[in-house]
Amino acid sequence: MLSSWNDTNTKKALIDFVDRVTKKDGPDFVPEPERIAVFDNDGTLWAENPTYVEGLFAIDRMKEMVAKDPSLKDSPIFKPFIDKDIEAIHKLGIKGIEEFVLKTHEADTQEAFSAIASQWFDKAVYAYYKNPVVRCYYQPQHELLQYLRANGFKTFIATGGGLEFVRAIAEKIYGIPPEQVIGSSNKVTFDLQEKNVAVKRISELKSFDDREEKVVNISLHIGRRPVFVFGNSDGDLRMMQYCLSGKGPRIAFLLHHDDAERERAYDKDFALSILKEALDVAGEWGIHVVSMKNDWKKVFAFE
Amino acid sequence: MLSSWNDTNTKKALIDFVDRVTKKDGPDFVPEPERIAVFDNDGTLWAENPTYVEGLFAIDRMKEMVAKDPSLKDSPIFKPFIDKDIEAIHKLGIKGIEEFVLKTHEADTQEAFSAIASQWFDKAVYAYYKNPVVRCYYQPQHELLQYLRANGFKTFIATGGGLEFVRAIAEKIYGIPPEQVIGSSNKVTFDLQEKNVAVKRISELKSFDDREEKVVNISLHIGRRPVFVFGNSDGDLRMMQYCLSGKGPRIAFLLHHDDAERERAYDKDFALSILKEALDVAGEWGIHVVSMKNDWKKVFAFE
Repeated sequence: MLSSWNDTNTKKALIDFVDRVTKKDGPDFVPEPERIAVFDNDGTLWAENPTYVEGLFAIDRMKEMVAKDPSLKDSPIFKPFIDKDIEAIHKLGIKGIEEFVLKTHEADTQEAFSAIASQWFDKAVYAYYKNPVVRCYYQPQHELLQYLRANGFKTFIATGGGLEFVRAIAEKIYGIPPEQVIGSSNKVTFDLQEKNVAVKRISELKSFDDREEKVVNISLHIGRRPVFVFGNSDGDLRMMQYCLSGKGPRIAFLLHHDDAERERAYDKDFALSILKEALDVAGEWGIHVVSMKNDWKKVFAFE
Repeated sequence: MLSSWNDTNTKKALIDFVDRVTKKDGPDFVPEPERIAVFDNDGTLWAENPTYVEGLFAIDRMKEMVAKDPSLKDSPIFKPFIDKDIEAIHKLGIKGIEEFVLKTHEADTQEAFSAIASQWFDKAVYAYYKNPVVRCYYQPQHELLQYLRANGFKTFIATGGGLEFVRAIAEKIYGIPPEQVIGSSNKVTFDLQEKNVAVKRISELKSFDDREEKVVNISLHIGRRPVFVFGNSDGDLRMMQYCLSGKGPRIAFLLHHDDAERERAYDKDFALSILKEALDVAGEWGIHVVSMKNDWKKVFAFE
């Protein structure tokens, strides 16, 4: 296990933590039900750069929508993406991007959307990495999830990505079932027609699961403070601090993308995944900074 | 297992269902991750009549609050409860009752509230049943939960009761961990002070987990349509219909409180737990009506 991790201090700290919390009668023992581990997804479990996976999905859906209704080509939220006009995309701002995401994530019901996402995952390719999207997860993290579960941890995802989008694939590639995925959610409404009940999607954001909201949603979904958190951006800092300020043994990791050769090197400023505060306060909070370049023997399974 | 269930058609249907969905290569086989079973709590897993357990808690907390601040005695939402004035309580209406519940459930943080609830459960007595509250669960359901889990089901609670209130006890008495409890929730807010992160409670309702909202919250928390639902009132009908209108084998049960001798006999109209529609449409939807009197050999473990 953990064979894609180099024998560095990071790996040592990781194993030491797991050993301590699982040692019965040890001073740091944590009962199994309290071994809650929460992972961010984009840039933590799978690649997010140069493009978010969900961005690839959104672009593909936009194309489908435009093929069905060519008039959409000129809509103000689609046009910048069709033209690949980076400047115009930036000009859309958070609100415009949100509209674009909502529009490309439209579906009648939650189950209809899940089916759309599943079908997309079945054939989507991440061109930059020359591989199917479903293979663009990080191999060391895959091993870490298994290692934690083998040690009685329950593994969760808390993602800024769409709840149903990530749920459609998390079990298959991470072994994390839908009920252990927390994410950004749409408003929905109950619908009963004759003998059919459905949960209808409404094209409005209910919760953007990022920063402070990750903590609020962890409290809502899990109801326990995690003892283990892994993230890669300022969006994950709050849940790391939530984890670390609880009582008893706790640990938090911050993945630093410093590997231009095997993946990408970025930190201070990439799209929504901004890493400014978290890197600066890591030392002060005792957050372990994981260097992709030095701590990982392998990045992707397909390498 | 299921030794507190009489050998009736209900038990037969229950066992037959579990046999079918767990039979590999059988036509009704359901893969383990999809074996999602959802139970209501009040009146389904533990007694709710003559008083909701959470009502007992609210009254006790009110008394504590009044002891600390006697001026509260005359507050319009406390006075009817202090005077045990049933008519005045009814006059409070849903809004007034909600205010009373919110007031008696106030605490600085989610963790502070959980501690208050846990301490209460440690010593609370259900006077009507002459037993500790934590023993007022139904023995046949206790066996059913274990039976389902032994057959690869994941068991959840979807309760109209308070999320943190039920989470404080569900693991201990039902073996259901906090992350598998869905319930009515307060608004909360993220708080960071120096080195401390807390989830602060706000005295406002976020979601009243009843009727349609149970379906919405199951979708949010679980992300899968349950194949097994057990309830006892109109508040549970929607999630039964949600379960039953999915594809593949499904089953839903409605507990009918027809046992005045060992528990209580009530249906059409008890407080919030109204049973009008559900009993009438049970046949049409294929909902199994469970007779406490005939189907259960034992109601409580302490009998």
